[in-house]
Amino acid sequence: MKSREVRLKSRPQGLPTGAHFDIVTVDLPAPKDGEVQVRNSWMTVDPYMRGRMYDGPSYAAPFQVGEAMQGGAVGKVVASKSPAFKEGDLVQSFFGWREGFTAPASLVQKLDTHGLPEQMFLGAVGMPGHTAWAGLMRVAAFKPGDTVFVSGAAGAVGSMVAQIAKLKGGTVIGTAGGKEKVAFLKEIGVDHAIDYKEGNLLQALQKAAPKGIDIYFDNVGGDHLEAAIAVAKEHARFAICGGISGYNDMAAMAGPRNFLQVVGKRLRIEGFIVSDHGDMLGEYVGQMSEWIKAGKVQVRETVDEGIENAVGAFLKLFSGANTGKMLVKLA
Amino acid sequence: MKSREVRLKSRPQGLPTGAHFDIVTVDLPAPKDGEVQVRNSWMTVDPYMRGRMYDGPSYAAPFQVGEAMQGGAVGKVVASKSPAFKEGDLVQSFFGWREGFTAPASLVQKLDTHGLPEQMFLGAVGMPGHTAWAGLMRVAAFKPGDTVFVSGAAGAVGSMVAQIAKLKGGTVIGTAGGKEKVAFLKEIGVDHAIDYKEGNLLQALQKAAPKGIDIYFDNVGGDHLEAAIAVAKEHARFAICGGISGYNDMAAMAGPRNFLQVVGKRLRIEGFIVSDHGDMLGEYVGQMSEWIKAGKVQVRETVDEGIENAVGAFLKLFSGANTGKMLVKLA
Repeated sequence: MKSREVRLKSRPQGLPTGAHFDIVTVDLPAPKDGEVQVRNSWMTVDPYMRGRMYDGPSYAAPFQVGEAMQGGAVGKVVASKSPAFKEGDLVQSFFGWREGFTAPASLVQKLDTHGLPEQMFLGAVGMPGHTAWAGLMRVAAFKPGDTVFVSGAAGAVGSMVAQIAKLKGGTVIGTAGGKEKVAFLKEIGVDHAIDYKEGNLLQALQKAAPKGIDIYFDNVGGDHLEAAIAVAKEHARFAICGGISGYNDMAAMAGPRNFLQVVGKRLRIEGFIVSDHGDMLGEYVGQMSEWIKAGKVQVRETVDEGIENAVGAFLKLFSGANTGKMLVKLA
Repeated sequence: MKSREVRLKSRPQGLPTGAHFDIVTVDLPAPKDGEVQVRNSWMTVDPYMRGRMYDGPSYAAPFQVGEAMQGGAVGKVVASKSPAFKEGDLVQSFFGWREGFTAPASLVQKLDTHGLPEQMFLGAVGMPGHTAWAGLMRVAAFKPGDTVFVSGAAGAVGSMVAQIAKLKGGTVIGTAGGKEKVAFLKEIGVDHAIDYKEGNLLQALQKAAPKGIDIYFDNVGGDHLEAAIAVAKEHARFAICGGISGYNDMAAMAGPRNFLQVVGKRLRIEGFIVSDHGDMLGEYVGQMSEWIKAGKVQVRETVDEGIENAVGAFLKLFSGANTGKMLVKLA
């Protein structure tokens, strides 16, 4: 079986372009004893992958120049030399950014879809949703009645934060860029949907939360974080999930100018990574599957097709062209 | 009885000068029923008082222009119309910035010195020491074996953080400005004393903590906070006590440029105010009194004399002219 894969050609400085990547066709070896061969049906593109394009120590190892990148994928076993898998099994792996692969069976997991579409396990019921759950419920210690501000609220993580907070009895303020996304925020029940491209973010936030916010779930950083500090109540909790506004310019990203308010307001600002919260995954998948099947959570996906469009899909994350989970359909 | 008091004349923008304050002599009224008259022997000047010179909401109400400022003081009762106090009683109050006062007895507290010099209850055994204890032990959740970085380590709070951390089994890195203060840090047992005025702070910190820091106790902000983020271990805890580098220029104080590392390193950054931790005061005073009497903790004080020098003593906090607790002896 042949597979096209996306390799990192050179490390981008600033915003990546197509020129930083190669698409290469490889012949997949037949599986040896203990191995499986998989054809990917879906792969995910996520903002954190930008960090792996930098060299240097981070929580995830850097992608290697000249090698295929990695990321979440779901697919079907097409050949198996492992007793644990048979042809046709639906599996999940970290061998994204390629159409197929041959790998030790220990590196793929069978996927029980709970009756949901398989690609949701790359989004709403997968890593992004689990991130929303861990950040909101554990890191930010959500309580019913809390006013939650979430930036990037139309994104894969943010749209789950917003809906979980609503279902758990919170008031939700969400930001997104553009009319279409703001309309989506209203559809999913966000109480105050703010278009950060229109008018003054801080003023809009002050109007939406005259008594202040209890929780800030940060996907954006920069001016959003600064505005959140400005409107935070005393003892507010900030779950810092990411800062997409700075991913392409990490060296120069300004911290919040009003940082000193952290003292007077006794803010708790905590960064987190979902992989530290694996113990919550089972609980999350169970709860979210139920909510989705009951129609209580809406799942929005933006889908591009074909491995040749994977880099373009990834870049949409930074131009804000996606609403909900950005996915690439491969088969 | 006559008393001289320091009043706020106008709100300083930037660094205050003597011109922002008035010294006015007042006649203290004789105490009425339920009141006491006190002659202050010591008053404290603390960095947080700069914040009270700004107008606008904060955790402490702003000082009022044209009125005497407030702050911690110890003194002796000179006249009492309260059954709870008699002449000669040693008391503590928040009526600093003046030589004496007449006030309801409910606003002064008898001071049990545990055999220590009374002024220590404005410093090592008072609010600054209690701040060190609460920030290190509760907010930063100190554990034996932790590597603790404390900025402003020669100051009233910092020198207590350093010594508590050493006595509890930590390794301590401290910064201060100038040779004299660095010598003091070595005297109190700081493992790595860094003069931030000499050479590159980040490099010195990397050399002192090649494996990184577990805790940062921040009294300074600015470049110190940024360097602390750079050398933090994963899951490091930051207790943000203050940011003296920004007190006179709050609006423009830059946040840490490397803030995004908060995510990858899963840092917890928490601001705190000692008054939220009053439940720890008794435990603290007991422990610290023992340590001081046993010679296990050194208490350094910088003392100016006379109410006419109180403003000058306060300004020394910002030029770094004090080592240890800055105090004003009034009688």
